[in-house]
Amino acid sequence: MNTLGNKLRVTVFGQSHAPAIGCVIEGLPAGFAPDMEKVSAFMARRAPGQNAWSTTRKESDIPEILSGLVEGVTCGAPLAMRIVNSNQHSKDYSGLKRTPRPSHADYTALVKYGNSYDIRGGGQFSGRLTAPLCFAGALALQLLEKRGITVAAHIAQVGGVADAAPDFAAVSAPDLSALNGMEFPVFDGEAGTKMKAVIEDARMSADSVGGMIRCFVLGLPAGIGEPMFGGVENRLAAALFGIPAVRGVSFGDGFAAASMRGSEHNDPFIMDGETVSVRTNHAGGVLGGITSGMPLVVNIAVKPTASIGQAQDTVDLETKTNTSLTIHGRHDPCIVPRAVPVAEAVAALTLLDMLMED
Amino acid sequence: MNTLGNKLRVTVFGQSHAPAIGCVIEGLPAGFAPDMEKVSAFMARRAPGQNAWSTTRKESDIPEILSGLVEGVTCGAPLAMRIVNSNQHSKDYSGLKRTPRPSHADYTALVKYGNSYDIRGGGQFSGRLTAPLCFAGALALQLLEKRGITVAAHIAQVGGVADAAPDFAAVSAPDLSALNGMEFPVFDGEAGTKMKAVIEDARMSADSVGGMIRCFVLGLPAGIGEPMFGGVENRLAAALFGIPAVRGVSFGDGFAAASMRGSEHNDPFIMDGETVSVRTNHAGGVLGGITSGMPLVVNIAVKPTASIGQAQDTVDLETKTNTSLTIHGRHDPCIVPRAVPVAEAVAALTLLDMLMED
Amino acid sequence: MNTLGNKLRVTVFGQSHAPAIGCVIEGLPAGFAPDMEKVSAFMARRAPGQNAWSTTRKESDIPEILSGLVEGVTCGAPLAMRIVNSNQHSKDYSGLKRTPRPSHADYTALVKYGNSYDIRGGGQFSGRLTAPLCFAGALALQLLEKRGITVAAHIAQVGGVADAAPDFAAVSAPDLSALNGMEFPVFDGEAGTKMKAVIEDARMSADSVGGMIRCFVLGLPAGIGEPMFGGVENRLAAALFGIPAVRGVSFGDGFAAASMRGSEHNDPFIMDGETVSVRTNHAGGVLGGITSGMPLVVNIAVKPTASIGQAQDTVDLETKTNTSLTIHGRHDPCIVPRAVPVAEAVAALTLLDMLMED
Amino acid sequence: MNTLGNKLRVTVFGQSHAPAIGCVIEGLPAGFAPDMEKVSAFMARRAPGQNAWSTTRKESDIPEILSGLVEGVTCGAPLAMRIVNSNQHSKDYSGLKRTPRPSHADYTALVKYGNSYDIRGGGQFSGRLTAPLCFAGALALQLLEKRGITVAAHIAQVGGVADAAPDFAAVSAPDLSALNGMEFPVFDGEAGTKMKAVIEDARMSADSVGGMIRCFVLGLPAGIGEPMFGGVENRLAAALFGIPAVRGVSFGDGFAAASMRGSEHNDPFIMDGETVSVRTNHAGGVLGGITSGMPLVVNIAVKPTASIGQAQDTVDLETKTNTSLTIHGRHDPCIVPRAVPVAEAVAALTLLDMLMED
Repeated sequence: MNTLGNKLRVTVFGQSHAPAIGCVIEGLPAGFAPDMEKVSAFMARRAPGQNAWSTTRKESDIPEILSGLVEGVTCGAPLAMRIVNSNQHSKDYSGLKRTPRPSHADYTALVKYGNSYDIRGGGQFSGRLTAPLCFAGALALQLLEKRGITVAAHIAQVGGVADAAPDFAAVSAPDLSALNGMEFPVFDGEAGTKMKAVIEDARMSADSVGGMIRCFVLGLPAGIGEPMFGGVENRLAAALFGIPAVRGVSFGDGFAAASMRGSEHNDPFIMDGETVSVRTNHAGGVLGGITSGMPLVVNIAVKPTASIGQAQDTVDLETKTNTSLTIHGRHDPCIVPRAVPVAEAVAALTLLDMLMED
Repeated sequence: MNTLGNKLRVTVFGQSHAPAIGCVIEGLPAGFAPDMEKVSAFMARRAPGQNAWSTTRKESDIPEILSGLVEGVTCGAPLAMRIVNSNQHSKDYSGLKRTPRPSHADYTALVKYGNSYDIRGGGQFSGRLTAPLCFAGALALQLLEKRGITVAAHIAQVGGVADAAPDFAAVSAPDLSALNGMEFPVFDGEAGTKMKAVIEDARMSADSVGGMIRCFVLGLPAGIGEPMFGGVENRLAAALFGIPAVRGVSFGDGFAAASMRGSEHNDPFIMDGETVSVRTNHAGGVLGGITSGMPLVVNIAVKPTASIGQAQDTVDLETKTNTSLTIHGRHDPCIVPRAVPVAEAVAALTLLDMLMED
Repeated sequence: MNTLGNKLRVTVFGQSHAPAIGCVIEGLPAGFAPDMEKVSAFMARRAPGQNAWSTTRKESDIPEILSGLVEGVTCGAPLAMRIVNSNQHSKDYSGLKRTPRPSHADYTALVKYGNSYDIRGGGQFSGRLTAPLCFAGALALQLLEKRGITVAAHIAQVGGVADAAPDFAAVSAPDLSALNGMEFPVFDGEAGTKMKAVIEDARMSADSVGGMIRCFVLGLPAGIGEPMFGGVENRLAAALFGIPAVRGVSFGDGFAAASMRGSEHNDPFIMDGETVSVRTNHAGGVLGGITSGMPLVVNIAVKPTASIGQAQDTVDLETKTNTSLTIHGRHDPCIVPRAVPVAEAVAALTLLDMLMED
Repeated sequence: MNTLGNKLRVTVFGQSHAPAIGCVIEGLPAGFAPDMEKVSAFMARRAPGQNAWSTTRKESDIPEILSGLVEGVTCGAPLAMRIVNSNQHSKDYSGLKRTPRPSHADYTALVKYGNSYDIRGGGQFSGRLTAPLCFAGALALQLLEKRGITVAAHIAQVGGVADAAPDFAAVSAPDLSALNGMEFPVFDGEAGTKMKAVIEDARMSADSVGGMIRCFVLGLPAGIGEPMFGGVENRLAAALFGIPAVRGVSFGDGFAAASMRGSEHNDPFIMDGETVSVRTNHAGGVLGGITSGMPLVVNIAVKPTASIGQAQDTVDLETKTNTSLTIHGRHDPCIVPRAVPVAEAVAALTLLDMLMED
């Protein structure tokens, strides 16, 4: 359902047009004083309305603590937080219940919940629900940092334009810090410029474009994860598919491994001083579901935003006839840049949970 | 850990060279008389030693029922099953604890479990553990069939050779039946022939090759799955990454969606008589984590078998020096064909569990 | 942790002096329009300050819906609710961290959470956290009612005074309705009067007194519950021990069964027309963890309120010496009457969850 | 279902007359070499046919390891074990499906599972299923011992005869060792003699008698357990109700607390040198769901064996008429002595799981 994690557990609530969205975080260690400036800065990376490649819609997104924090320090009780929904449009959404938007959850939600489904602004399927996830993830990132673990993602692809991929065996903490500081995190600035052009082009065509996020985690100890269904891949994939628009999750070379030979894909072990290391890291830091101590590399495919300004074919559920629909309003021509911190947040929450369980 | 599912729950046990492997299945409905011939036939699809593209090693793999079945009918108690391990080689495996095989779980398991880890034959990480999964999956497939649900997968890719992909909106029950009946399930026989040549070529080079499996599920009702972390994608991905060698899981167009525009990727709704349908099915049958009633399409990237006959670099964990290793023994040059029924089994178990929870 | 249930899941948050307390309820069916008057009336039964036998402290306890309800109807999204904490005393609680109150969670919470623990008003262990549980339980009770299931509890004992126990095989819906309507729910009014005197006597002695609650559930279908660890007893006990001050949970004759012979305790089956029934119901409606269709009977032992006005011995954790403590403030001389609706709420949530899972 | 625990997880399988019973234990630490002599000795305490107060039926109960143990040492893989059922009587059980035995699970299991239910020997509800639990518990006890934690139970009551109760604040490791060594573990030998007479008397009357077990745990660190629904009481109760015939679970003074005043029941803290201790331990070692470091005391009510030799009223489910039934065969006149190690096993498994999760 809306709950992620075992020992560190986040329950997300809210709909786009409910009085509030928010989350309850169980299992945070007591005595932790989160840096709220950093939390805000992290959440701002996800917030819309900030630059040319996201929707112009603005959200204030100020988290209000309901419990669990006493004078800025966790007390051991669940940390509950809400964000009041203030920027809702009062326009009529009822039409959407008749003509579901292609590739949205409108139709499946109507089948599941019936006519009571809150379709306004995408309801509980709205990307807005990732704001509380980012809040929770920002706390997890700070707790991971205390353990010497860094999480950062880059925009690996937008449309047909790919960013440079670093050597998975050699990606470094400074590389990740650099990514964390960028508004449009790419390794190759030129590729970034092209990506922005692709996004702008999609916007000008009242269209949208998909992309790929690649998330790195440095500093994970070897030995984390359980075999079979409790592995790092199982857990991360289960979590990352909770981000709206994600269509695929892979590790290391991912689907490219399908075209490779064992002699290419295998990662030879080598000694790095006293430490076991690998010459290549096609595996992306996980073997048999268990971390190898090498950089963790997870790739996330993001589909093009379903809401586009062009007229689209759909059905009228009342008359049971074919019809056409034009979606109005402000939408992200490419959700990938704003999904980067969400991916980091979800990865951080999952890995911290696994570390706490270990 | 080794447990899959909530209401229908499979716990797998065993190591490659333990006295036995097996599983316990909780939650099977009472009064179900599985067709054991079909179970055996299904398990045989996974068994090795049957054709040119798999290892020549033989396993008898006869499941012995320990509980839960009375005169061939489930009684409501957990169904426990074991397969005695009879074909173990007595050779010395202790060397592997010093020189971990590249891209195997040897190293990470040694870090996690220490020197007590049972490394013989890959221990608990052995692909042999998928035999009990296939047993359980064969039961799930029969129970799904009673609900009008069919599961079948094809070998979508081996190395650089791709099978023809059917129209995801039009894949039909006869298509799936055809796949289920093939020893090497592909839509395009010529592609299949090329794939076998690629595998043979890898074998002759003492190498291995990866591939991709695409699994279809027909007949799922719309409305199955929960939002956020309880969706069909989350659940299937978490399960499918439990299959050894899986490196990626995606739905519908998967990672190709990254290069697409919304106007291409969106699936227009159309009326099919009285039924809501879609013109295309890029989404692969899931919207917002919930089934749409369209064919479910899941893609699974499989890496090349890590065990290859060529000399490979690795380390000596005792002397902490670099060294070289040549793996002997019989290994699959391509695990993809044998992984096809495993993917079907895991998909069937997960979807039946979700249907039973609904 | 703070989460109850599987398919119907309640996550409670808050501390006595946090900005708010509340809960998130996942899994409510969409399209349910709860009767909020009845919810308020139910919550009022738990609220303090209403009569002679409870603390004179007042709480407004107005639940504010954050999400999940659209124009009074559930929409399928988690229903989140908060109650703002408005009646907090600003007095200094820091002394309690030095001198833990006997038989409170002060000491164990300090061991667990360290000095960051929010000890004000009992923190996250405060009985106040049962208000959101009652809110959630009130919804569950309405959903059970739609299924023809009634839940009601009586004050079976206060101190040494016992209420009349009805015939467990014959307890009827009107009996339960009568209980639900009483401010001090007992079968024997005279016993009730004596109990109130016992409570008043305890109050006058700056002391407190324990008691027992017996909860009945009528209308449960036979066949609910799983064997071994998934039985009705396992689930109800796990939930009911979540109510502060509960020290024991038993079913039917409970601990009295220890003194009985099989010939006394066994419940002979008899036909009641076409329906299988029992002549006696010592088992309290559960056999082998599974409901029998007979009235469910669960007994809950409640200890005397730990906060009493008398001086008590304790330790000074700073100086590590023995010392004495007098607790000031308004406390319930007997928590049993206010715990009655809490027991009903928790039983209702657990049983509805089990019915939804079935 | 049949699974106990989170991080240390036991899945029990089997029916009384299935080919085998057994269990799979996930989460045991690798490198643990269980003392199998001690395991056997522990299991023997539960085995029937050994003395006057248990059934004369014999079971060999030799556990056969299927996986997880290599040369006597755990390897990190799930430890699977089976016990072959060899002593089954071939008599006809089908009559029981028509005339359910009073206070057995026959009737509720038939409702739940239908006519496929395996009623032979009590099927999956047979007390025989506690043999694998004892095997698993014996391992847990050894692992707890390594942490300095001792678990032992006494027969606190049989029929109307009560054993002496020790001072809950002063119960000592030697007290518990003494209990562990007794065939009929009581503190007061005279009471034990009377209890045996009560049992013998029940047997001579073709009747049975109930009792109470009290289990102590010494050496638990303070701070174990989570608030609300994750407390020690919640977890232990949920587990202990999985033992057949258990009707109540309470902690410390349990239901007697209902008759007490706060001034009697509260446990004053005192310094014991540098350590915080309590003068009395009415709470039984848990406050707010969290261990206090004091002896843990849990009481378990056990009903009289349902199978008695006297004629009893029941119904004929086929003709839907009242009838009478006489149960033949060998049955325990009092299950309490044999349930003592089962209670210790289940408590040990649960507490070790909680310690591993901490």
